[in-house]
Amino acid sequence: MLTGIGVSDGIAIGKALVKREQRAEFLRATIDDERAEKARFKHAIQEASNQIIQIRDVMNKKSENENAQIFDAHLMMLDDPEFVGQVEELIETESVNAEYALQTVASRVISMFESMENGYMKERAADIRDIEKRLNGILQGAQPVSPTECQEEIILVCNDLTPSETAQLDRTLILGIVTEAGGKTSHTAILTRSYEIPAVVGLQEAMKQIESGDLLIIDGATGDVIVRPSEEMLAAYTSKKAAWKNKRAELLPYKDALSVTKDGKRVEVAANIGSLQQVEGVLANGAEGIGLFRTEFLFMDRETIPSEEEQFHAYQAILEKMGDRPVVFRTLDIGGDKQLSYLPIAQEMNPFLGYRAIRLCLDRQDIFATQIRAILRASAYGKAKLMFPMISSLQELRQAKAVLHDVKSECREKGIAFDEEMEIGIMIEVPSAAIVSDVLAKEVDFFSIGTNDLLQYTLAVDRMNEKITRLYDPFHPAILRLIRAVIANGHKEGIWVGMCGEMAGDPRMLPVFLGMGLDEFSMSASLIPQARKTICELDMDEAKRIAEAVLQMDSSDQILDYLQLLSRSHS
Amino acid sequence: MLTGIGVSDGIAIGKALVKREQRAEFLRATIDDERAEKARFKHAIQEASNQIIQIRDVMNKKSENENAQIFDAHLMMLDDPEFVGQVEELIETESVNAEYALQTVASRVISMFESMENGYMKERAADIRDIEKRLNGILQGAQPVSPTECQEEIILVCNDLTPSETAQLDRTLILGIVTEAGGKTSHTAILTRSYEIPAVVGLQEAMKQIESGDLLIIDGATGDVIVRPSEEMLAAYTSKKAAWKNKRAELLPYKDALSVTKDGKRVEVAANIGSLQQVEGVLANGAEGIGLFRTEFLFMDRETIPSEEEQFHAYQAILEKMGDRPVVFRTLDIGGDKQLSYLPIAQEMNPFLGYRAIRLCLDRQDIFATQIRAILRASAYGKAKLMFPMISSLQELRQAKAVLHDVKSECREKGIAFDEEMEIGIMIEVPSAAIVSDVLAKEVDFFSIGTNDLLQYTLAVDRMNEKITRLYDPFHPAILRLIRAVIANGHKEGIWVGMCGEMAGDPRMLPVFLGMGLDEFSMSASLIPQARKTICELDMDEAKRIAEAVLQMDSSDQILDYLQLLSRSHS
Repeated sequence: MLTGIGVSDGIAIGKALVKREQRAEFLRATIDDERAEKARFKHAIQEASNQIIQIRDVMNKKSENENAQIFDAHLMMLDDPEFVGQVEELIETESVNAEYALQTVASRVISMFESMENGYMKERAADIRDIEKRLNGILQGAQPVSPTECQEEIILVCNDLTPSETAQLDRTLILGIVTEAGGKTSHTAILTRSYEIPAVVGLQEAMKQIESGDLLIIDGATGDVIVRPSEEMLAAYTSKKAAWKNKRAELLPYKDALSVTKDGKRVEVAANIGSLQQVEGVLANGAEGIGLFRTEFLFMDRETIPSEEEQFHAYQAILEKMGDRPVVFRTLDIGGDKQLSYLPIAQEMNPFLGYRAIRLCLDRQDIFATQIRAILRASAYGKAKLMFPMISSLQELRQAKAVLHDVKSECREKGIAFDEEMEIGIMIEVPSAAIVSDVLAKEVDFFSIGTNDLLQYTLAVDRMNEKITRLYDPFHPAILRLIRAVIANGHKEGIWVGMCGEMAGDPRMLPVFLGMGLDEFSMSASLIPQARKTICELDMDEAKRIAEAVLQMDSSDQILDYLQLLSRSHS
Repeated sequence: MLTGIGVSDGIAIGKALVKREQRAEFLRATIDDERAEKARFKHAIQEASNQIIQIRDVMNKKSENENAQIFDAHLMMLDDPEFVGQVEELIETESVNAEYALQTVASRVISMFESMENGYMKERAADIRDIEKRLNGILQGAQPVSPTECQEEIILVCNDLTPSETAQLDRTLILGIVTEAGGKTSHTAILTRSYEIPAVVGLQEAMKQIESGDLLIIDGATGDVIVRPSEEMLAAYTSKKAAWKNKRAELLPYKDALSVTKDGKRVEVAANIGSLQQVEGVLANGAEGIGLFRTEFLFMDRETIPSEEEQFHAYQAILEKMGDRPVVFRTLDIGGDKQLSYLPIAQEMNPFLGYRAIRLCLDRQDIFATQIRAILRASAYGKAKLMFPMISSLQELRQAKAVLHDVKSECREKGIAFDEEMEIGIMIEVPSAAIVSDVLAKEVDFFSIGTNDLLQYTLAVDRMNEKITRLYDPFHPAILRLIRAVIANGHKEGIWVGMCGEMAGDPRMLPVFLGMGLDEFSMSASLIPQARKTICELDMDEAKRIAEAVLQMDSSDQILDYLQLLSRSHS
């Protein structure tokens, strides 16, 4: 048995297809006719564009808009005069073959991207590699081949998948995926989750241990991979797989139910999203609202800042799609690990403790006021709520509200329609905000607890840092105490309190938060049915007892043991 | 009036001496005899070493051991075969003049150091620049000149001072210093504070605005620099300066007093140190103990890890010098902004939220156990206390205590003497530790609140990040609430609670902490007399009233206004 990082839930049992592939190394060759060589390169660019447009159009037809975006990005790169120009220049000045020139320029760009600290920019290295592979394939006269072509159901084992390879996977034949490279947030992880293909990544030496044709079992929840399982193992996992499928079937009815406890307490189960495309999944899973719309995704992957009009149309479209369900718009949360090319932030030693989100917006009131105006205008078309991220003090909140106040006045003067009743809230994600939540509650209509950052700061642990992941501990009693205090402080002032971090979707934690009185649970859309089922099967007295019991405990080990026992006895 | 960053308290009034100096640029020249050129370079190295040894010996005679260390570091660099080798290789392979070769290699090393995120490593760039300047001066036949040579009392205005220039300042003639470069933690800042020379750094364009001979007033507390002051200004600052001098005179008797409030409550005012050399200052200022010995300084600026013997001797020496006054040894706090060349830590995106201090020590129990053994052995020679940094949870504390337990057992078996009663404590600097301090208090003999990190994490603000310094706010009500809770939780379990962050020495804050019941205040030795005076002039009822009043306030603005008013009415 091998163990990697489980990134996409589910069990797959089937034959391995091991895809071996070295990155081709092209030798430097001297050419006579630079002009002809550049023309050959230009032709390859043209051919690659044609291929990509074709793939993209298929994606778009299948309504896989997010995958289609990957290919849009690739087209942009092929169109980038600097990238193409550097290759041509190398051909010209050094009289080298196009393959070698391309490889040289691509390596330079890749290592530049890889050396960046920013996770998003690092990922761009994969796109360059993808394009280089495609272009050199064309230059070498290879036919465009989907690397995962297969005639039968298989489990794909490979070093890594490029974004375009992952996007083209034949989901009817790929039972599961194992890769040597990658982590929780890699492209492969994100796409396999959205395809609901079980996947294990980061399994070093997978290709040494596994041969094509080997029978494999992979468990995308635990990261376990069993090569040539015994009869016993096979039987065990076959029934585990059946149980998993059953469980998914059981969840189906909860997609359209209300979130009501056995004794009739109604809460809201909502979704976190980052783009208009995700609204489909939100509706399909029966979210009662959008508890967090990360507006920064509208600002990313582009060359210029979106105009007020553009923002307005995006916000309006989401509100209209959601009908009478609420949508919480979080204002721009840029900085930290999210960077915009057109709004460069100086390199920081600790970006998570740096110049980000509301800190940046209060300095750049041009950007901030424009966004608020776009959201206000959209609020006339649905049930919008506005939320400020990273608030750490009363002064900061008042500054943000002052900007909102000014924009509202301006809209009224100009006769621009907006929802005068629109609720204003803040993320509680900085420890100081949680600690003075009694003070902040007097100034807003709601709180949303951002557990991801709240954990990072409260425990002083960067959750991306692999050396200390064991310390990133959602069951730490300090976290539960803070959350309890925030909910109690909110309720004392009569405002509702939600949660939009990853903890909100954890079925083990749900009884605790329900018992503490949490009003709204916002999570990835795919987690909604399970969360709703958990809520519907509880009653409030039980939930309160669980919350009280947990709050008496001294260590996360104790808390985790107790909650796991509880969740097993329930299922 | 110009405003820079005040880094060393006090007012200076005098004539400006503007030291203009361009970094010499050496042109590339082709030489005929590489061997002779290398010999010329070797000779310059030898001469530079002689100069440096001479300066260092003067420093040592004047008991300026910390300054002497700067020159030890320079000697080590001159002795570094890689640095010297690269210059020689360039002379050899490219047939260039030594000046140009040195300049090329030095630039490379400087930009490497400067690109490092780590503050300590960045500072090394200044040392290389320093050496390059000295060597090229020698190569050009210049006489060694102290750049601050002057015949009369002046205020020195320059772009920046190299470490060796700062160390050589003639303190009888330099009334104050203004530099264009530098920040709160620069070399110049640290040394001018230890020399008690008023200094303002980071005053961009100082050299454009100020001419040699201009009358200047500088206020090292506020960072204000007044060029060619009016008669009025001059009068105002002359009396301000006199008041400041008076105040210092007033503090003198508090160097040897006890720290007792008017109504007889005794607390401890202790010092934070990082080296044996600092003990002198600790005793001179009448510290009642050492509340924080940062043992990592023993590990820094060297090529290999200090052995148990070496550590033992250092710890023993400090304990013996301190006699019956307690010394709190904090175990290794490496990582974050402090790196060791022989214990490399992978580059981290957010080192302050990363693999540091106890997190690293629990993984490297070889290093950790060795240090604990050295401290235990030293404990036989004085009043040692042991403190673990960065504890974030009960589990982590128990793991650290388990290592201590094993080392103690081993010592007992081997018959090694140590203080069986040695107190064990933890830093409270991670928010989660403060929040569960009731639980942690059951397991230790004392707490020491590390306000610097506690602020960073609670407010999610890197205090080194210049874009957000205004958010690094010691008066934030969340901080005061956490500190109150930690003190109360400690006392509930009958343990003493100290503080060793920068806030412990802030006279505006002292009444608040005293009122909350803080038992020990540990600070830079130079702050002790002022802190003790503040304590001696308060009574506990008053302090409690102040603490209660502050805890009722909603924002740091309110708290700061109140405390500033209070401290003005007292002085």
